[in-house]
Amino acid sequence: MTAEITLESRHIYSGKILNLRVDRVALPGGGEAIREVVEFRGGVGIVAVDEMGRVLLVRQYRYAVGRDLLELPAGILEPGERPIECAARELEEETGYGAAHFEPLCRFYSTPGGTDEVLHVFTATGLTPGRPRPEADERIEVIPTAWDAALAMVARGEISDSKTVIGLLMAQAGRADSTRAEE
Amino acid sequence: MTAEITLESRHIYSGKILNLRVDRVALPGGGEAIREVVEFRGGVGIVAVDEMGRVLLVRQYRYAVGRDLLELPAGILEPGERPIECAARELEEETGYGAAHFEPLCRFYSTPGGTDEVLHVFTATGLTPGRPRPEADERIEVIPTAWDAALAMVARGEISDSKTVIGLLMAQAGRADSTRAEE
Repeated sequence: MTAEITLESRHIYSGKILNLRVDRVALPGGGEAIREVVEFRGGVGIVAVDEMGRVLLVRQYRYAVGRDLLELPAGILEPGERPIECAARELEEETGYGAAHFEPLCRFYSTPGGTDEVLHVFTATGLTPGRPRPEADERIEVIPTAWDAALAMVARGEISDSKTVIGLLMAQAGRADSTRAEE
Repeated sequence: MTAEITLESRHIYSGKILNLRVDRVALPGGGEAIREVVEFRGGVGIVAVDEMGRVLLVRQYRYAVGRDLLELPAGILEPGERPIECAARELEEETGYGAAHFEPLCRFYSTPGGTDEVLHVFTATGLTPGRPRPEADERIEVIPTAWDAALAMVARGEISDSKTVIGLLMAQAGRADSTRAEE
């Protein structure tokens, strides 16, 4: 499908985790439109499974939605940081765990109608516990959760963060495939 | 977990699909932080399956990410509109199809670290074809897709929009449960 061409780009805001710009574009079929674009740096989520088969979830207050959410350990890319490096850093900062192996699981656009945010999800195995080092404005509770219990919380809507739902369901689909392949 | 308390809210931008505000908050453990919040009106996605078992996907150019994406039919809530009404309206506008039945499948936060966006996903059945009525700035191609082919595109990362990945995987999990229940 043909691209929309930027005619004018108006910078509105530069911030800590996001920028906002408003562009005027030429539509492929003729005419113009306004496109509001929130620029994020992109981020990662980590499906980390410990030696007892539990997935590490974190509970934290999310100001934007006004409530606690249960999520995968996650974070935002530092400038120039590779997603896999970010995954290792955030897993350790938020949970204290190091991991021997990180594997890319999937990546997705969180809300491509209005933002450019890409989230990269990794699986992490070979975990070694350590001491969490959350950022100054983060309060995070680590909750190791049995795999089936985590999937049940997805099914019941108690886990409702996109990267967490996608990470758990994609990892589960991969497990189902491995099981079939071994049969 | 204790909430963060708003000390000051600075309105930055009001737009067509989003607003931006920047708040100063008191942290539960003491101290303050800045929270950037993109306000969206919320939206819907629809997993609509036709009489041949195909799911209706739509391909459209997404300016924010600079490429075409294959997605569920979807859209933004009008002021005062209920999600299920929005689902019926958007399905018809984007694909031309009406549906006899809409059922809530799940809802999720697309990116709760920086936005309040909630996406409501419905299943739609009992489809009747009609004539699409896209908005003036939308160019949408409707692609009815075999269920297994759609899941394979999710597994290969060719479908990478959060609501579409979540809608297809949650609907698939529901189907697997029904199959087990019938056995």
